[in-house]
Amino acid sequence: MYSETGSQWNVAELEDAAHRHLISPAEELAKLGTSGGRTLFTSADGIYITDSRGRRMIDGPAGMWCTQVGYNCKPIADAIAAQALRICYNSPWYSLNGPSAGLARRIAEFAPGDLNHVFFTTGGSSAVDSALRFMQFFNNVLGRPSKKTIICRIDGYHGSTHLTAACSGRAGNRPNFDLEMDNVTFISAPNRYRHPQGGDEAAFLEFLVAEFEERIESLGPQNIGAFLAEPVLASGGVIVPPKGYHRRFLEICRKHDILYISDEVVTGFGRCGEWFASEPAFDIVPDIITFAKGVTSGYVPLGGFVISDAVLGRISGENAKGSAYTNGYTYSGHPVSCAAALANIEVIEQGGLLAHVREVAPYFQEQLRKLGEIPLVGDVRGIGLLGCVECATDPHSQAATDFDKAVAARIDRLCYENGLIVRPIGSMCVLSPALIIKKEEIDTMISILRESIEKVQAEIRAEGRF
Amino acid sequence: MYSETGSQWNVAELEDAAHRHLISPAEELAKLGTSGGRTLFTSADGIYITDSRGRRMIDGPAGMWCTQVGYNCKPIADAIAAQALRICYNSPWYSLNGPSAGLARRIAEFAPGDLNHVFFTTGGSSAVDSALRFMQFFNNVLGRPSKKTIICRIDGYHGSTHLTAACSGRAGNRPNFDLEMDNVTFISAPNRYRHPQGGDEAAFLEFLVAEFEERIESLGPQNIGAFLAEPVLASGGVIVPPKGYHRRFLEICRKHDILYISDEVVTGFGRCGEWFASEPAFDIVPDIITFAKGVTSGYVPLGGFVISDAVLGRISGENAKGSAYTNGYTYSGHPVSCAAALANIEVIEQGGLLAHVREVAPYFQEQLRKLGEIPLVGDVRGIGLLGCVECATDPHSQAATDFDKAVAARIDRLCYENGLIVRPIGSMCVLSPALIIKKEEIDTMISILRESIEKVQAEIRAEGRF
Repeated sequence: MYSETGSQWNVAELEDAAHRHLISPAEELAKLGTSGGRTLFTSADGIYITDSRGRRMIDGPAGMWCTQVGYNCKPIADAIAAQALRICYNSPWYSLNGPSAGLARRIAEFAPGDLNHVFFTTGGSSAVDSALRFMQFFNNVLGRPSKKTIICRIDGYHGSTHLTAACSGRAGNRPNFDLEMDNVTFISAPNRYRHPQGGDEAAFLEFLVAEFEERIESLGPQNIGAFLAEPVLASGGVIVPPKGYHRRFLEICRKHDILYISDEVVTGFGRCGEWFASEPAFDIVPDIITFAKGVTSGYVPLGGFVISDAVLGRISGENAKGSAYTNGYTYSGHPVSCAAALANIEVIEQGGLLAHVREVAPYFQEQLRKLGEIPLVGDVRGIGLLGCVECATDPHSQAATDFDKAVAARIDRLCYENGLIVRPIGSMCVLSPALIIKKEEIDTMISILRESIEKVQAEIRAEGRF
Repeated sequence: MYSETGSQWNVAELEDAAHRHLISPAEELAKLGTSGGRTLFTSADGIYITDSRGRRMIDGPAGMWCTQVGYNCKPIADAIAAQALRICYNSPWYSLNGPSAGLARRIAEFAPGDLNHVFFTTGGSSAVDSALRFMQFFNNVLGRPSKKTIICRIDGYHGSTHLTAACSGRAGNRPNFDLEMDNVTFISAPNRYRHPQGGDEAAFLEFLVAEFEERIESLGPQNIGAFLAEPVLASGGVIVPPKGYHRRFLEICRKHDILYISDEVVTGFGRCGEWFASEPAFDIVPDIITFAKGVTSGYVPLGGFVISDAVLGRISGENAKGSAYTNGYTYSGHPVSCAAALANIEVIEQGGLLAHVREVAPYFQEQLRKLGEIPLVGDVRGIGLLGCVECATDPHSQAATDFDKAVAARIDRLCYENGLIVRPIGSMCVLSPALIIKKEEIDTMISILRESIEKVQAEIRAEGRF
């Protein structure tokens, strides 16, 4: 028997239930009723996860860029259980709870500059959705109802609500949804590997800056409400922008009174060795930072945004004009979620995990970059404990081919058989392990990936396809 | 010291942290930095909740229509902790977990008709957002890209994402947000008390049906994708539609191939004495049912929708045309949330709580209706353990006046002092206690409410205002 909770079912019954009754994210509907390639995971510990056939693997993506402190962390489980007994819920519309108050204070401490007020939601999608709704609200209260356009990037990912999906520029997420919005516009991804127009890094930056300025000019700054950007485009392919990119973009936003929303759902809570990456890694104090995932290490759903006093002050207190920010979720500031986050933060602090990441991340990046010597590897990139190896079977192609994607999927399957989960995104093998990973485990991870890439390279060479 | 988890702060420090750092739902921005009238709740047990000054009260609204089995339920806390240790997270994009599979099967059992597939989200807003995005997807795959308009009701509430807020017809939630959408249209709330055009109940139903048919006719059924409706409009004022309303509306939807989405975020999981109210209470098998809140009794965030085989079959399997439903959340099918739901379901089953609700709800409704004899009370309505008393100081007014709302707020404050939380919504005092409530506790609740109404009535009479 697998589950003690409610369901006295064995693995076969659970798999059957999933196939018959579950619609998973990005479900391929032609395969509905089958596993769709998804295996059942039944236990996990530290950086490892185990499937229903007992295979124990390093969880390369840490769930979905989220299990920062690793699996089976007793202090978090204890905190969740204690809070569930103490007070499992209160309505945030007319009451407060201790954990959300305490967590708001901790997040204000971690956030750069004067970002001191926190609004909680249930995850990254609702965090970004709420931040964008704040932008609408802000400009309406300020009497600038036309200042609403959101500038986003191709290959950016910001969520799966109607609005946040519309702001996500990953082509694969868009078919068959109605995502064209008048108030959303896309500029280039800062991906030098796939956008080689600009020569060197500095020239590429100038290209990107000019495009941003031209877009603002052509739409009119009086019509633009926000620039929405992940510091590192994560599921778009671990795209680290040219040096100085965010600083330059922020300066342009300030000039035109455009809110800069830094989407740190992936980069926050230690992924880059800092609580938030915006200031220490990218030299910006944005107006709003969104967070989720790492805030609880994925143990329970939680998200939110933290906003500057400078921005909030323009529409609060004496400047409020009687307005109420009538946005909110049943689970905003959920006490159990916030207690999990507080415990998670304590585990990160007591384990010295931010310093640990700053120590092992350069090693991780260095080892990962060595894979660039393999001919099949077109690009290697990353920052902190966020890394990506991109396969390119045709060095002359400007975009990933279907064969590149098939090759990445083959590498992924081989890694799985050899004890490592990598998450193939198109032609890319992406790694973002738990923050607790040790150098020896990084070695294991990289060597499984190297062997798998080399094996698949040999196979496709033997097939005459590379 | 209040919190053991991460925060060794006392109550004053926590209140201070909340005032300085928290933006609550519907925060009045003029009062930012103060409590905004919100008290800190520090513990809870069964149907009771206790504030930071040690006042223990019956939680009349059960949090936010959600704490079905009551607070401090050890089996749920244990299940959450056990699951957090076993496997606290897995990516639903490329894997499965036991609790979400088991829960999907249970929900398919509970759902009427052929509603057999479940998509999980993080709460009610994302559940409805996803269901509406499914409607877009469905009609695009079927080659009907124009069939997208959503028909909603005035006073309906469906969430706080951009799209679900746009579908919510409560006037108070709309100022300063950009909620006008071409594809969303509103028809009347089925509120006979405030819409007396139709004479008796049967005549009022004909009025509503005619309005619905006319709207479909004028917009063109080929342009209408969904009818989105709570069985009972909850935060819009516990509006129970005329008998036969949902059945008639469903028949009209079927005639025009319009998806009927029954939003059971409030009515689901026992509130009306059934797992879902759609079929047993309102005689319909809708195409999609959305759920949240009661599914975990609010212990951890979870939501989702369950959809019929008939609808899903039109775009899956052989009919899929290669399409993937590229919607999904990091926390879709979260194992800890789903384990909480399974434990919650087991507590409901083992405690015979559905039968208990069917037994005590008629008594609750009967006692509540006796309050209608108080002159200040304009209307009493409800179903199951969902009830509402509406104050009306001016019997000739077609709408609640500002004074009515002030009176309800005074009643609310008096109840609070006397040991009962009621949630004032405009001029209404709303009650939706935990399902475990006993008849004696119903008596206590009603008598505190009665005394408070009568006292405020005496006061406003003395003031010459009633």
